[in-house]
This record gives sequence, C-alpha cells and structure tokens, in this order.
Amino acid sequence: MAVSVTAALLIIGDEILTGRTKDKNIGYIAEYLTGIGIDLREVRIVPDVEEEIVAAVNALRSRYTYLFTTGGIGPTHDDITADSVAKAFGVGIDHDPRAVAMLRERYQPHELNEARMRMARIPDGADLIENPISKAPGFRIGNVYVMAGVPAIMQNMLDSIAPGLQTGARMISEMIEAEGLAEGIYAEGLAAVAAAHDGVSIGSYPSFSASGFRNQIVVRGKDPAAVTAAAAAIHELLGRLKGDRNPL
Amino acid sequence: MAVSVTAALLIIGDEILTGRTKDKNIGYIAEYLTGIGIDLREVRIVPDVEEEIVAAVNALRSRYTYLFTTGGIGPTHDDITADSVAKAFGVGIDHDPRAVAMLRERYQPHELNEARMRMARIPDGADLIENPISKAPGFRIGNVYVMAGVPAIMQNMLDSIAPGLQTGARMISEMIEAEGLAEGIYAEGLAAVAAAHDGVSIGSYPSFSASGFRNQIVVRGKDPAAVTAAAAAIHELLGRLKGDRNPL
Repeated sequence: MAVSVTAALLIIGDEILTGRTKDKNIGYIAEYLTGIGIDLREVRIVPDVEEEIVAAVNALRSRYTYLFTTGGIGPTHDDITADSVAKAFGVGIDHDPRAVAMLRERYQPHELNEARMRMARIPDGADLIENPISKAPGFRIGNVYVMAGVPAIMQNMLDSIAPGLQTGARMISEMIEAEGLAEGIYAEGLAAVAAAHDGVSIGSYPSFSASGFRNQIVVRGKDPAAVTAAAAAIHELLGRLKGDRNPL
Repeated sequence: MAVSVTAALLIIGDEILTGRTKDKNIGYIAEYLTGIGIDLREVRIVPDVEEEIVAAVNALRSRYTYLFTTGGIGPTHDDITADSVAKAFGVGIDHDPRAVAMLRERYQPHELNEARMRMARIPDGADLIENPISKAPGFRIGNVYVMAGVPAIMQNMLDSIAPGLQTGARMISEMIEAEGLAEGIYAEGLAAVAAAHDGVSIGSYPSFSASGFRNQIVVRGKDPAAVTAAAAAIHELLGRLKGDRNPL
C-alpha cells in the first residue's frame, strides 16, 4: 500500500470572503501538491480574526501531514497570521535576527521602520521560508508552512519548500471524454465499474456552456495498473452505450 | 447596531482538491452575498467522502445563519451530497414526487432510469430549489441550501434563493489606491486610523506584477458615515505621506 501524505490549506483574508479578491492560490496549490504526491484533503478560508485563525490552524495541523497557509504576513495592522500561528502553537514571537537580516537586503536602515519590522516577527522555533521577490520571509513551525498571499510570492515560496517535503506515491489520473453521452446514460455502468475497481476513485464532471453539457470522467489512483484497468473498463462501457445509443 | 446575517459556504468535490477543476463559485458567491447584505464568514472545501461532508455540514450550519453548498447533486455514484446532508440532519431520504415531476419535464419516461432518479432523492422535509437549465433541483433543509456545482446552474439557483433570504445591513466599501506608496510607509498611520475608527474594518492589499507592487486600501463597514470618515482619514494620511515622501 502506497504511503499517503496529506495536507490542508488555510487561506487567510477578509478580501477573499467579501469577494473583493478572487482567490488564485487554491487551484495552483491543489495542482502543485497533487503533482508532487501530496493529497490535499481540505481547504478553509477564514477572515483576519485571530481566534478564527488559531482555531483553524489547530484543527487542521493535527489532522493532516502538512498545513499550508497563505495571506496575512505583510506590514499592516490586518496582517495577524504570524501572531495567530504563534498563539496556536503556544509559543512566543519576536523579531527574528535572520528575518531582520533578510529585510536589510531590501531596506536601508532608515526605511526599516516599526511596521516593516513587523514582517520580521517570527514564532519561536520556526524556520524561515525565503522570499526572493520582496524579502519578507514566510516560515515553517512544526508541520505548518506560512506563506504570502500574493500569488507570485506564494509560488516562489512553494518552490523553495517543496524539496524538503515528504511526498507519497503520486496520484495518476486519466480523463475520458464522454463525447455526447449524458451522465444519466452512463451513471449505472460507471457505478458498476467503480465498485469493481478497488484503489481508484472515479468522478464524473459535467460542465455547461452555450453548446450544452460536456461530461468528462476522471479515474484517479496511485497504482498505474489499476488506473489503466478502470479507464479501459470505462472506454468499453462508453463504446457499448454509444452503440446502443438512444438519441435522447 | 445593524443586524448581522452570516453564512458559510461548503464546496464539495475531489476535483477541486486535486486542482483538476479550478473553482469559480467561491468568488461569485462571496461577492453575491456581500452585495445583498449577508456576511460570508467561512468557506470549506471537502472531498466526496460522506463523513467529511456530514461533519462539515454540522459544524457550519450550527455556527452561521445560513450554509450554502455546491457540488455533488448529479446522477453519478460520486454524487453523494443529498444523502450526506440527510445524514447530517438525521432524516430520511427518498424520491421526492415534486422532484420527479421536475425531471419529467426534461426526460421521457423511458429515459428516467435509476441513475437519473437519484437526482430526485431529497431529504425528508426539504424544499426544492428550481433548476431552469437541467431541471434536477437543489434543495433547502433547515438553514442549509444545497446547490449544483456547475457555475451556470448554481448562479440560477442562487438567484431563485436570494429573495427568500434574511439579509442584514449591506456592507459598504471604499477603495483607496495607495498610488506608489509602500505598505511599510503607511502601515503605522493606517493602524492609527483603524484604531480611531470603530465599526469599520480596514485592509491593505498588495498585488504584484511585472511593473512592481500596487497597494489598495479598502475600508468596509455597514454605517456609511463611518466608512466615509475612515476613508477621508486615509486620504489625508496618504496625502501627508506623499508630501514627505522618501523616494525609496
């Protein structure tokens, strides 16, 4: 049985919950983690409220191999992620000399005011995550990785974190176009294929546009032979249904 | 004090967690609810796993005025939302004659097979939510609104739900461009403005592109006078800082 490495993602920020900012990090991180063999099992979005962040961090870090967070690590008063994570872990937080040194690469001494120094507040015992774009680092404490919310910075941080992560067997997926067959036509046969094939999950995904519905069936699993066998059974099913096909 | 009507959103589907499908519903629903005076306080994304859906439905419906869900109400074996919601409420579930009648508007009797009839499985005591596109309804039980995952259908369902929702005072927001001022320059002054202005929340949102950082400050609140006063204080702050401006 393949090792399963799991993760949760916590998006922190009022701006996502009001719809002002449309999140671009969930889809990116989901695809990235899947690609390196980490199963993203849950995502939560919470506001910039300390008790909400603390509760979510503690609920999620205890349940999954890793917790990744985005958002709330800048210099303004609404950036409360570092303090909230320190509270969740019950550790102190202060200006970290390593983080201060990083900020000094970007700012002249007279520019490094109290607000900017907030970006060097790191929970005790954390490792830093480099930020090549704007220098203010993220950090890792325990199994929690705290990253920036700005997509370009988050993506850089994820690249620098990834080599150090434990990963499991990579999820393999195969997509099969239903090519005009309705979900209701293949649903019964698909359920039978799913029941007969252990170790894979099979999903049916309709999308809708001006030209009508388009259905795609996706087989996912970690054993290539099992995915191939289930996909073959689905191709066989769809071929059979197309032969019998009721035009409606 | 304005009444606060709150909501959570639960997105159900493996395809979002693997990154195969990029969610388009969170941003839409967030903006929609904000626009009608409902405060979206939390979002969760969970896989197509009954116990996960049941746990999330029960955690969220007890905490907020409303819970909205998307996904998992089609005819295939991975569509388990209705059964999971029935389980969360501890009620039975069966073919609902009203839902069957809706499906009959779309399907001929010989087309209405067992898989399609799954879409008429509705928890006991639920009201139906019409689906003008593909007929298979969503439903409301208690304070939980179960909608389709396909964006066009979800959006139609939300339009039909909205007139029946309790709404609170609408959130008003004012956005102020920092026009080249760095967050670290205005952070201290902005914190002072935030501390001096009750009843508003103030966020600072950097974005990053090839041309560098762009910062936007957003004041949100339900009292127009309070929002206007805080926004004026921020304009005054930024004007003062630009006058003093250090070119770095």
